[in-house]
Amino acid sequence: MQSLQLVSRENHPEDTIVTVRGVAIGGDGFVAMAGPCAVESRDQLFESAEAVHKAGARVLRGDAFKPRTSPYSFQGLKEEGLQILAEAREEFDMPFIAEVLDPRDVELVASYADILRIGTRNMSNYSLLQEVGKTGKAVQLKRGFTATVEEWLAAAEYIATEGNPNILLVERGIRTFETSTRNTLDIAAVPVVRQASHLPVIVDPSHSGGRRELVAPLSRAAAAIGANGILVDVHPHPEDAKVDGAQALLPDEFAEMMGDIGRILEALGRA
Amino acid sequence: MQSLQLVSRENHPEDTIVTVRGVAIGGDGFVAMAGPCAVESRDQLFESAEAVHKAGARVLRGDAFKPRTSPYSFQGLKEEGLQILAEAREEFDMPFIAEVLDPRDVELVASYADILRIGTRNMSNYSLLQEVGKTGKAVQLKRGFTATVEEWLAAAEYIATEGNPNILLVERGIRTFETSTRNTLDIAAVPVVRQASHLPVIVDPSHSGGRRELVAPLSRAAAAIGANGILVDVHPHPEDAKVDGAQALLPDEFAEMMGDIGRILEALGRA
Amino acid sequence: MQSLQLVSRENHPEDTIVTVRGVAIGGDGFVAMAGPCAVESRDQLFESAEAVHKAGARVLRGDAFKPRTSPYSFQGLKEEGLQILAEAREEFDMPFIAEVLDPRDVELVASYADILRIGTRNMSNYSLLQEVGKTGKAVQLKRGFTATVEEWLAAAEYIATEGNPNILLVERGIRTFETSTRNTLDIAAVPVVRQASHLPVIVDPSHSGGRRELVAPLSRAAAAIGANGILVDVHPHPEDAKVDGAQALLPDEFAEMMGDIGRILEALGRA
Amino acid sequence: MQSLQLVSRENHPEDTIVTVRGVAIGGDGFVAMAGPCAVESRDQLFESAEAVHKAGARVLRGDAFKPRTSPYSFQGLKEEGLQILAEAREEFDMPFIAEVLDPRDVELVASYADILRIGTRNMSNYSLLQEVGKTGKAVQLKRGFTATVEEWLAAAEYIATEGNPNILLVERGIRTFETSTRNTLDIAAVPVVRQASHLPVIVDPSHSGGRRELVAPLSRAAAAIGANGILVDVHPHPEDAKVDGAQALLPDEFAEMMGDIGRILEALGRA
Repeated sequence: MQSLQLVSRENHPEDTIVTVRGVAIGGDGFVAMAGPCAVESRDQLFESAEAVHKAGARVLRGDAFKPRTSPYSFQGLKEEGLQILAEAREEFDMPFIAEVLDPRDVELVASYADILRIGTRNMSNYSLLQEVGKTGKAVQLKRGFTATVEEWLAAAEYIATEGNPNILLVERGIRTFETSTRNTLDIAAVPVVRQASHLPVIVDPSHSGGRRELVAPLSRAAAAIGANGILVDVHPHPEDAKVDGAQALLPDEFAEMMGDIGRILEALGRA
Repeated sequence: MQSLQLVSRENHPEDTIVTVRGVAIGGDGFVAMAGPCAVESRDQLFESAEAVHKAGARVLRGDAFKPRTSPYSFQGLKEEGLQILAEAREEFDMPFIAEVLDPRDVELVASYADILRIGTRNMSNYSLLQEVGKTGKAVQLKRGFTATVEEWLAAAEYIATEGNPNILLVERGIRTFETSTRNTLDIAAVPVVRQASHLPVIVDPSHSGGRRELVAPLSRAAAAIGANGILVDVHPHPEDAKVDGAQALLPDEFAEMMGDIGRILEALGRA
Repeated sequence: MQSLQLVSRENHPEDTIVTVRGVAIGGDGFVAMAGPCAVESRDQLFESAEAVHKAGARVLRGDAFKPRTSPYSFQGLKEEGLQILAEAREEFDMPFIAEVLDPRDVELVASYADILRIGTRNMSNYSLLQEVGKTGKAVQLKRGFTATVEEWLAAAEYIATEGNPNILLVERGIRTFETSTRNTLDIAAVPVVRQASHLPVIVDPSHSGGRRELVAPLSRAAAAIGANGILVDVHPHPEDAKVDGAQALLPDEFAEMMGDIGRILEALGRA
Repeated sequence: MQSLQLVSRENHPEDTIVTVRGVAIGGDGFVAMAGPCAVESRDQLFESAEAVHKAGARVLRGDAFKPRTSPYSFQGLKEEGLQILAEAREEFDMPFIAEVLDPRDVELVASYADILRIGTRNMSNYSLLQEVGKTGKAVQLKRGFTATVEEWLAAAEYIATEGNPNILLVERGIRTFETSTRNTLDIAAVPVVRQASHLPVIVDPSHSGGRRELVAPLSRAAAAIGANGILVDVHPHPEDAKVDGAQALLPDEFAEMMGDIGRILEALGRA
């Protein structure tokens, strides 16, 4: 793949390990990152965080800024949400990820979050990529839902050229003609990217499948194919979720799934 | 289509006409917007502008900020490019369009350009949509290359909710499995959008086809199907173009095409 | 494009003209082919045929064998349908097209029909392609709804290698993520194919758009871009149609559209 | 999903187990089916068959009729190939699968093969589906590379309505815009289909990935997600293969992969 220099495995054969508050992501490891899609209240977040922490998640997810197709949908709690996430971080000793949507908000979000996320709609928002690159903080870069792998890696190159090598790539499904899932998880992208790049690759089974019952099977596939982790929506009361409740696992389902994943990793010598 | 209010034809049956420096876009009219993909120098822009003006284009295109897949590609002349465009506007009495990529640049670009363009990669960059909405200036909103028509109109709604009704929608091709063209021009989107919305719809035959020899046929189709205009790359020396030379028409080809389009519009009573 | 020999324009620069019962298809000409999607009864077919004949269609369409996604849907009148079509041919002096689905039915269908159609689902049914190739009869080859242009031309090559050069290519839309139309009409395929091959190219606005109100706009685009004809569903009582009523034009709408198309062709010197 | 009756899990809650010469496919089991893409010679097939048998494959693959995009490509050894496959069956005590392309060949292929395969290009070739349905033999039905899951199941319904319940569904990748793989393996289709239908689901990692190094990772994912088996190209000398050598595993790679799969199945209690 042309135009890739810093993120290319050819130029950097060893796996990059991104370490965030003691949690190492990359190489042979596998890290579960979980929590509600959006922070809605302190109670909702803490209930989720406690459950996913207990079941083995090492990183907390929960967004305070939500990009929504319609201007009339819930847009997130903003700074108040970040404050709640920061409290949960202390309570459960888990670093947290939060999405950032606007270059002007990068400083604010980076002052709270441990990992900044660039969402699928912003994969080619080059100003935003450069701005998160400048912070030096760990960045989760979601694949654009119609980006090729090559374009996705070129977007990572934008972050890396700002001097920031702490990039986590997230495969979250691409847009196809199939309608039985929200997006089509391109599971082959995991080995394709791991061959082309030294960066860790995470799978998001929630936004790809779009249905609760697909999350555990897709997560098992992610573990078996060699992903470095998963990013999972978990909600204690999905029927009341303001965003994407249909794809959120219940805490018990998450715990059961984590057991299967542990056994798969052990079977493959990655425990 | 749900979640559409301001841009929906149901709520606003009459066609919106966007008028920019005396050029009316929308309704039964058809406006050619043309020029080089990127401003590279004063000479290059003036040569293009003179040619397209002479052949009947009413609006000048030419970008000063270019979103590029690779961070190592030419990124545009920035403010210097906008100054050259502003000079050409006076010389040829044509309003000009320029792309804006970052909410922090909106004020700058809006201080020069007559029409602000949101490119395909930024269709779902909601901060940017809101920022251009606030300027009140005419906005060209390109369809995301994997957006549905419904998502495209919802993005227009983000601009409209800021109080800005001066929106031009640009169909520029979607991503499919076909490789003989750069993107697949979704020509049916023109009547679909004109039925669903009162906003003008423009076709970009250059970025969809991606090949010089397809631009004239696609432009004729756009005129015949009922588009309100076209947005065309024209370059006096495409072999030297820094961006997208393969799809730029030569000035003579543009003039010949404009003749055919005029005859089609006349045949349909839209002259 | 590799692997193309007989259908390649490089090896055969002149346009192929396919002549069927005195109707010449190809070159600068434009032929409307119209009628109901499926023959349902003698009355229904004759009413359609009379209307489309009067409005300027030169070839009658109407299928007797229907490929249906579900085994429980109406599958066509079979030989009885072919007999009705043959009667209509005499009554209105129009050659007719009929789809053939099975290599074992080719002899039967060819004993009635003037043009054999290979539907989109069978574009890569090589046994069927070879069998229709052997008849020497004119063949309409629809593009597979997920075939590339190159694969479509390679399928035509299968017919041509049997010694049959009488091939009409039909662009009928491809499958994409867009849901506001049944398929996405790849209008650029018309000039792409006409450049790569000497064979005539027809556009099917009915199966691509899938909605009545899109048929006239798409047909105008087809005429303007340089197609050699259109293939249109027309039904006198679409609300009662057994197949695809939502996309069938009423006879009056068809006549009005034919007027516009005539004016576009005249404007382009193709009258 | 409408229009599904016989293949729907709602109407038939228990898993279907298809048994072929003592090999049971379906339920909690996992069966590896492997061999060369095409039979090229007795030596080539026997060498492959011996290797895959030794490594734990239970069903032999190897085609005698090949559907090729170009009429000028190798089309298979036909009956001679079937005879070689039948000999290998006796030698290694493995049932074999062979593709059938034409309804007129069904009787011939069924007189040799244990499992008939309908390839991706023929998923909607309803005559062929009905003909294989009539034989009562086990049928592998590949998903059309642009079929939705619902259409794929409806195609299975065509086989089932002929009284044949012995259907194995094969997910082999769908066509998308991504070019780093041959097709995009829709791994989520495995749980989606297993929820909607009682039929076994097999994954083809070779035709989806299209590259040797992706076959083992994709096969591990298939085992972990709950597929009932895999269908893998293995060739002793892929550099000399007449068809699809780039995606064929070497025998040693296949054996190593089978070890990993065994450990994953055991970890999930499916050993």
